[in-house]
Amino acid sequence: MSDRIRVALIGFGYWGPNLLRNFAEIEDAEVKLVCDPRPDLARRIGARYPSVELVGRFEDVIARTDIDALVIATPPQCHAPMGMAALESGRHVWIEKPLATSVRDAERLANKAESRGLTLFVDHTFVYTGAVRKMRELVTTDEVGKVLYYDSVRVNLGLVQSDISVLWDLAVHDLSIMDYVIGAKPVSVSALGVSHVAKDAPASIAYLTVFCEGGLIGHCHVNWLAPVKIRRTLIGGDRRMIVYDDLDSNFEIKIFDSGVDLDSNDLKVNYRAGDVRVPRLDRTEALARASRHFIDAIRRGAAPLTGAAAGIRVVQILEAAERSLARQGAPISLEPVS
Amino acid sequence: MSDRIRVALIGFGYWGPNLLRNFAEIEDAEVKLVCDPRPDLARRIGARYPSVELVGRFEDVIARTDIDALVIATPPQCHAPMGMAALESGRHVWIEKPLATSVRDAERLANKAESRGLTLFVDHTFVYTGAVRKMRELVTTDEVGKVLYYDSVRVNLGLVQSDISVLWDLAVHDLSIMDYVIGAKPVSVSALGVSHVAKDAPASIAYLTVFCEGGLIGHCHVNWLAPVKIRRTLIGGDRRMIVYDDLDSNFEIKIFDSGVDLDSNDLKVNYRAGDVRVPRLDRTEALARASRHFIDAIRRGAAPLTGAAAGIRVVQILEAAERSLARQGAPISLEPVS
Amino acid sequence: MSDRIRVALIGFGYWGPNLLRNFAEIEDAEVKLVCDPRPDLARRIGARYPSVELVGRFEDVIARTDIDALVIATPPQCHAPMGMAALESGRHVWIEKPLATSVRDAERLANKAESRGLTLFVDHTFVYTGAVRKMRELVTTDEVGKVLYYDSVRVNLGLVQSDISVLWDLAVHDLSIMDYVIGAKPVSVSALGVSHVAKDAPASIAYLTVFCEGGLIGHCHVNWLAPVKIRRTLIGGDRRMIVYDDLDSNFEIKIFDSGVDLDSNDLKVNYRAGDVRVPRLDRTEALARASRHFIDAIRRGAAPLTGAAAGIRVVQILEAAERSLARQGAPISLEPVS
Amino acid sequence: MSDRIRVALIGFGYWGPNLLRNFAEIEDAEVKLVCDPRPDLARRIGARYPSVELVGRFEDVIARTDIDALVIATPPQCHAPMGMAALESGRHVWIEKPLATSVRDAERLANKAESRGLTLFVDHTFVYTGAVRKMRELVTTDEVGKVLYYDSVRVNLGLVQSDISVLWDLAVHDLSIMDYVIGAKPVSVSALGVSHVAKDAPASIAYLTVFCEGGLIGHCHVNWLAPVKIRRTLIGGDRRMIVYDDLDSNFEIKIFDSGVDLDSNDLKVNYRAGDVRVPRLDRTEALARASRHFIDAIRRGAAPLTGAAAGIRVVQILEAAERSLARQGAPISLEPVS
Repeated sequence: MSDRIRVALIGFGYWGPNLLRNFAEIEDAEVKLVCDPRPDLARRIGARYPSVELVGRFEDVIARTDIDALVIATPPQCHAPMGMAALESGRHVWIEKPLATSVRDAERLANKAESRGLTLFVDHTFVYTGAVRKMRELVTTDEVGKVLYYDSVRVNLGLVQSDISVLWDLAVHDLSIMDYVIGAKPVSVSALGVSHVAKDAPASIAYLTVFCEGGLIGHCHVNWLAPVKIRRTLIGGDRRMIVYDDLDSNFEIKIFDSGVDLDSNDLKVNYRAGDVRVPRLDRTEALARASRHFIDAIRRGAAPLTGAAAGIRVVQILEAAERSLARQGAPISLEPVS
Repeated sequence: MSDRIRVALIGFGYWGPNLLRNFAEIEDAEVKLVCDPRPDLARRIGARYPSVELVGRFEDVIARTDIDALVIATPPQCHAPMGMAALESGRHVWIEKPLATSVRDAERLANKAESRGLTLFVDHTFVYTGAVRKMRELVTTDEVGKVLYYDSVRVNLGLVQSDISVLWDLAVHDLSIMDYVIGAKPVSVSALGVSHVAKDAPASIAYLTVFCEGGLIGHCHVNWLAPVKIRRTLIGGDRRMIVYDDLDSNFEIKIFDSGVDLDSNDLKVNYRAGDVRVPRLDRTEALARASRHFIDAIRRGAAPLTGAAAGIRVVQILEAAERSLARQGAPISLEPVS
Repeated sequence: MSDRIRVALIGFGYWGPNLLRNFAEIEDAEVKLVCDPRPDLARRIGARYPSVELVGRFEDVIARTDIDALVIATPPQCHAPMGMAALESGRHVWIEKPLATSVRDAERLANKAESRGLTLFVDHTFVYTGAVRKMRELVTTDEVGKVLYYDSVRVNLGLVQSDISVLWDLAVHDLSIMDYVIGAKPVSVSALGVSHVAKDAPASIAYLTVFCEGGLIGHCHVNWLAPVKIRRTLIGGDRRMIVYDDLDSNFEIKIFDSGVDLDSNDLKVNYRAGDVRVPRLDRTEALARASRHFIDAIRRGAAPLTGAAAGIRVVQILEAAERSLARQGAPISLEPVS
Repeated sequence: MSDRIRVALIGFGYWGPNLLRNFAEIEDAEVKLVCDPRPDLARRIGARYPSVELVGRFEDVIARTDIDALVIATPPQCHAPMGMAALESGRHVWIEKPLATSVRDAERLANKAESRGLTLFVDHTFVYTGAVRKMRELVTTDEVGKVLYYDSVRVNLGLVQSDISVLWDLAVHDLSIMDYVIGAKPVSVSALGVSHVAKDAPASIAYLTVFCEGGLIGHCHVNWLAPVKIRRTLIGGDRRMIVYDDLDSNFEIKIFDSGVDLDSNDLKVNYRAGDVRVPRLDRTEALARASRHFIDAIRRGAAPLTGAAAGIRVVQILEAAERSLARQGAPISLEPVS
């Protein structure tokens, strides 16, 4: 490995400029090239990053000898084939969420990375925000108590995609947050949705429910056709409750010293409403923290926070959700992931 | 019938004072009595309404000869038996939502009222608000276009009830609004939920989905254990979209001239974001309008807006939802109501 | 004095029904009559409160022998003459804000009440809210530290009055809150405003600034012509800051552990932004607490929280403000009130 | 003039990166250098813009022969001397707001630019936002009717500056917006404020009132010590009213079809509350539009929208405001600007 980790950025769509900017600012990393078939990007990238090369074909990147790590930000269907090619050629890999579009592919990536001793990182970006980290802290230190439910709404007027459903685009965020913050073991999944483009097109609005061990219920509403942008999550604990509003920059996380006191003897339930606290959050850009973490994981050979295991867990739920969705919400049991 | 319609109010719980106040203000109606077993209510009611009698037993109300109409505001389980007794004794009946706790009971009430030529009214209160009436106007005049989805969140830190689920307490509102505003024909229902009191207790958090003819999907999230009160509905049409926030007194209804332009040939979807309009609403208290409407329906012998048919449609969905909920969301087909 | 304190309510405008309802619910008080020249009120009041008499002329109330206390809710110009007549006839007096329309009148009322040993209460209602009481607690326990400024906006689309300016209608609330919460000694006053009705009509929009001892600056913006209702106060302390939003029922008081750290040596100023806390507030209706407090003050012969002294302090500022307003904001010094 | 207009950016503080980024993206302009005394900026600027030189001394920039225009983003005290030097050496000049710290200096700049036939631009950035442009359209097309008042709050927890008051830092924005949107002729100014750093330090909180011809009153509250960020402007017209909230990205401009109907005969005032409309805004970055406009003005030799005249008008009010502030709000008459 060279002194600085040499990075190739694969795909330069919506998220590409953010990836480029963040990796460019890491001292011991160096962005060597961007791989994208559109030749007109050369001028745009060159104006800001003259040392970054534009390469048109992925095969040419694989053939290079001056690349240590690939950052793959292409459509989900390409994650597995490109990730496999990269790992097989001995490169560390960062893959945008979701890790793959099937559990089988995700597991193949995981196995390959493990057998080759390479770092495999999935960009569950929200895990690296100050807000989500604070929520995990509140759950793990038992401030929230036993978590009863996780409910999220993530809707906006967005780009309707024709090849994947809104689950793979939006619910993947909620599942990765829930996986990190709560860490509950999912038991079964139910999903409902419809497409507004054509009868059999991928769902553009969907409702996903995850039943977990211990009775916890997780639910998210994802929607590309909402007139307003809403990103609000409620976490109900038996001690405290959290409201997380990603769009309320002043009061992103609110902790309610409120809840219900369950008296299991007589089934009487009393509620209690107390103070609310808005904790000060670390405002570091999530992608800055994530890219730094990826480079560190490569250097230290340590498993990243959002590695193959987290990636597989999320894909497993999404895969089951698509099957449930095809059966109008019939619950699908989840096998324990190996 | 006497010159003024003589009303007996059955049950004086949370909603009782509002019913009493509103019926007391109708010129051609007269509240003769409140029926409630708690003797200490006499002083409280008498202080404000000295001419209103307190009667302890329901049977004694039925036996009276000076009562034309019963306003039944007791727990849902009592709606059918009390309603039947009232109809059988020849009285017009107002029943708080839901009309009954089963379709069978609801239909028996409907049949009895019809055969006796009596008015049967179910208090789907929201139907009488300026906001909901405005939404119906926007849908029926085709301003919204084809309705694609109806999504509602109705949560707060509320009184957890031990004998009925949150569906019968809260989702009933959303179903009655959806029935009135959209008027779509439901085809199947899926519901998920859990109790946080005891494993087999009625659900305190639930998600209800209604699939309707034409592909419309309706969904509501109801929850007694939320730290904040949210009452927000999104209606997505292919022309315009509506956000209805019952708690935002300044901007209750927002109409977005936004949406998606579906090109069914190439499955390309473009979105369009335009102006937003906040219409001025009629601020008449819903219950004032509803009680006035009930008295008028009696006088004219006309079917009320929220009569037996609306009541049955809502109960049918709730009943199916409970069955789906017991099977973790398995979809339940709805038979056409006779 | 009779066993129950017998109250006469003078004036039955916007605030009248609230006063009647609250005094009617006090066990050891009894509302004997409402005095208002509109005969049609008889039916409206009688329907709810059949034992309450309607009296047309104020003189007839004064002449009665069965009245212990007068609650005066007439236009401000009537406060002093009616209050004096009531005190001279030996009655305790509650006067709506402002106590009077001049310091001279306010002092005459105060002297009369004192010489006769009667209770004189001015209805600075906000002082009796949970939010304002909490703010006083935060200031007096030094949580806020040294108060640097008090800034309030109280605007809406309101009833433009032709005989008094918006200062006497709206700023009176802010001054009474500031007087109670901060208790700073005002030194000079500046006010600016214009009328939008006619050049010389009383101001319908005004800005009032109070300079206090110790450098504290108080400011309020009051406006009858604003398209939205805003009632927001900022209190800046050198330890913590408060945002009080009377219309945000969930987060009425927010305490910011934020501020500036002043280093007086090198004039460097650093700011610090920490957690925010939303304290749980007592939700008792302010007028219930105020009316109860008035009756208790009469019984115990104790000075009420908002008695003559508070009333005079507020009127003094309003009087000076009108003088400043006539001179386009020229500052007016305040003499210490005797 | 070379084919592309060659720009030197003077000062690289808070606003510098935004200026650099925007000017770098203009096709027919070229950023040749940044002038800033901090040598460590070389690496930071070079990483992104390797063709941009870092020059330490302003004199060296003036001595260059390859510069057509200077973009001056230094502290306000430097605006006049640097602007004069630039104009005298024949360069076009962009100056950050305020144009200068005195009317005399501002007029000297204006005269110099005029006599040399050079473009002088002052960066009243908000004038180039979609929101402010929409407001001007609403006022000039008479949708708003006669403007009665302009009220703005612009507060946050900001960097307290030791050499200029908060007026020159924040109120300058409101004055430039008001100047552009309303275009009313100011007649007199009153300002109040205090410093919380030291008794005689520049004000850190201030209230500024501008009386204009025709009775219009403009007011702004500016504050570096507020716990929350508020940027809200109310514009009251006799036909419609506007609420402009710079921080509400979804509903930045709200147009209220509400107001007061003044009947000047009997001084009766009725209010009317109608629909609200939220217009869709152009989302182009203000600085992109402003920098483009500056380059175009140079090319065409045309007066820019925010040229010397607008800059002088704003400085005149700020200068008068400081004098009023020193006399606790005593009103200061404004001489017509030549």
